Amino acid sequence: MNIMIAQSGGPTPAINATAVGIIELAGTLANIDKVYGALNGIEGVVHDHVIDLSERLTSDVELEMLFYTPASALGACRHRLPENIADDPLYPQIIQNLMAKEVELFIYIGGNDSMDTVKKLSQYCALKGIDSIRFIGAPKTIDNDLEGTDHCPGFGSAAKYIATTFAELEKDCTVYNQPSVTIVEVMGRNTGWLTASSALSRLNGGRGPDLIYLCELPFDQDKFLTDLTLLLTEGRPILVAVSEGVKKANGDYISVIEDNKLDAFGHQFISGSGKYLENLVRNRVGGKVRSIELNLMQRCAGHISSKTDLEESRQIGRYALQIGLTGETGKMVGIQRVSSHPYQIEFVVSDIDQIANAEKKVPLAWIMPSKSDVTCDMIDYLKPLIAGETALKYRNGIPDYISLH
Amino acid sequence: MNIMIAQSGGPTPAINATAVGIIELAGTLANIDKVYGALNGIEGVVHDHVIDLSERLTSDVELEMLFYTPASALGACRHRLPENIADDPLYPQIIQNLMAKEVELFIYIGGNDSMDTVKKLSQYCALKGIDSIRFIGAPKTIDNDLEGTDHCPGFGSAAKYIATTFAELEKDCTVYNQPSVTIVEVMGRNTGWLTASSALSRLNGGRGPDLIYLCELPFDQDKFLTDLTLLLTEGRPILVAVSEGVKKANGDYISVIEDNKLDAFGHQFISGSGKYLENLVRNRVGGKVRSIELNLMQRCAGHISSKTDLEESRQIGRYALQIGLTGETGKMVGIQRVSSHPYQIEFVVSDIDQIANAEKKVPLAWIMPSKSDVTCDMIDYLKPLIAGETALKYRNGIPDYISLH
Repeated sequence: MNIMIAQSGGPTPAINATAVGIIELAGTLANIDKVYGALNGIEGVVHDHVIDLSERLTSDVELEMLFYTPASALGACRHRLPENIADDPLYPQIIQNLMAKEVELFIYIGGNDSMDTVKKLSQYCALKGIDSIRFIGAPKTIDNDLEGTDHCPGFGSAAKYIATTFAELEKDCTVYNQPSVTIVEVMGRNTGWLTASSALSRLNGGRGPDLIYLCELPFDQDKFLTDLTLLLTEGRPILVAVSEGVKKANGDYISVIEDNKLDAFGHQFISGSGKYLENLVRNRVGGKVRSIELNLMQRCAGHISSKTDLEESRQIGRYALQIGLTGETGKMVGIQRVSSHPYQIEFVVSDIDQIANAEKKVPLAWIMPSKSDVTCDMIDYLKPLIAGETALKYRNGIPDYISLH
Repeated sequence: MNIMIAQSGGPTPAINATAVGIIELAGTLANIDKVYGALNGIEGVVHDHVIDLSERLTSDVELEMLFYTPASALGACRHRLPENIADDPLYPQIIQNLMAKEVELFIYIGGNDSMDTVKKLSQYCALKGIDSIRFIGAPKTIDNDLEGTDHCPGFGSAAKYIATTFAELEKDCTVYNQPSVTIVEVMGRNTGWLTASSALSRLNGGRGPDLIYLCELPFDQDKFLTDLTLLLTEGRPILVAVSEGVKKANGDYISVIEDNKLDAFGHQFISGSGKYLENLVRNRVGGKVRSIELNLMQRCAGHISSKTDLEESRQIGRYALQIGLTGETGKMVGIQRVSSHPYQIEFVVSDIDQIANAEKKVPLAWIMPSKSDVTCDMIDYLKPLIAGETALKYRNGIPDYISLH
């Protein structure tokens, strides 16, 4: 039998580690002939843009390079399959293309949209009585917002980047012994997991962010200004972490300017939440203020990946293959935490119905009553996920990453 | 005798490595009693905010932590000494405070402004016939814009961060197989060394930035739009590197909006060069476009420091102390490149008069005739500076940095 892997959604430093887990295990199983890789997610299946990974990756050295390479080496897409599962011609086309390559197991490594794809394809096969192809989802997303798993592969590496970067920004901001405000915007439109990770910068004695705002709670602008003004009386640099997606009480993002003022090019002036708060502080508080966006760096910084994250990502790939080989379909593999002290996990399986299109938010109990910090329970949850440094190889002074196509 | 160290100017990941070089060598010399550290640069001398580093740093473990810690552990200042050297009362105050601590050698680790301070203090002493205190400058700046040295300690680490980050951003941007424009703004108001380092992302087979704009040449907006439009016909993601300080032919920064339009808070709308180009492309070319600022991360990312840079920074600290002990004053120590293949350097001394307030720009011959890329000579110059990875220790998943005060 042959199997096929595809990847989709936004980049993470761990998405290739999951592919490596699948490829490595498949290489040891006599009943698996070829491992195909579809390019640009499900679109690669639709258009038959597929590479033979068993041919492309011939050495352990290349597999190790792939393990450490950030962002989908097979490419990604933003393609939502049609809702009309019974009649849309795209479904038989996908199945036909998979059958033409004698693929009996399709593993999709991705986030919410990819799980929706797994759900629809398994539903289509059930509807049409096709039992020769199984569909398994393997989670990845730096946002950590998937149900059915304690945490998502990819998140730990992004959290390690964020924790490290906040520790370093704190060193940078405090060289001048005078009041200033530095606002750092962290990814997360609807969930604050990544922003919460900024608190991990305190683990080795750092002060960490003075104020942390997650998007699970409405942003109270007046309280922010009051709290900040009070902090500034201490006469020192103040560091603020804010989710890109913080919203007002009415649910609007804070960062969209209300009165439709236009910028110099005639476009609506839409800033990020960090830039918005920078302007707010400059206008209402004054003094030295700046904002920083961690931007794409927080999701592709393979050079500061978490060893724990990458190893778990590899193992969840192996597990996805094992589950698929038992005959399961329409499932997502996930991680269940057995204990935090010591950190222990096991792998689990969920029905994809319960995963696709759901969103796991930060529990409100893990946000401090001040609404501007996180609790020790949050730290206990996050801390094991950033543990360990990888053995990434460098060549010529930069990481030695691989390209597959 | 006692010696005193101070640090100033913007953070770099290597400024503490130079301090460590001084402290380590001083610890082996019988004629040096105490090594003091002035807090927040020359202001620490003025206000007698000084710590005893011989007391504060008692173990090799702490010295090693300091070696890897980014940003001035002694703090910094932006303080330009008065021009009236003969009569301003600040000068006798500084000398008095140094004499009170029996300091015979003051080493200032910093950039252009710090070298100006070394110059003025040594001039004051010459003027007043004071020969019991010497002043030596040790260079550091990520901008690499100091004369009297082949390259500046701190630059190699920032260049390694930039090269690595561009390699990773390229992985991120290319997961979607469709045209897009990503513009990355790199630090450098007047010199393009850091922006040029983005080309090092090609060293392991990456495509690197498609267009690179240094601030040494006037920015030709029409040519940029023409070149970009042509590149977009290839149907793939385009990566652009631009210096924060690129200017129009008339010398104005491109990023200041000419007609004084105001933002929603009534402030002049000033964007960075990256944001400016993003808006320009959105308006004139269209399609998917975004901009990224590497911001403070490029000057404080100690976790991706260059081993070559940190070791040279340590050695230049040792050399500064040796030179100071020979009785020299009003000098800056620097690096002279003996050869690039193999990479060999030696340390040299320059009169501070030739250094302070001068600025070393990228040679125009190292910019391609297209004006949007750098030459092989530039790569030959840059490549050895990012070589090697450090042995930075991690604890709890984040770097184990030290605080001195």
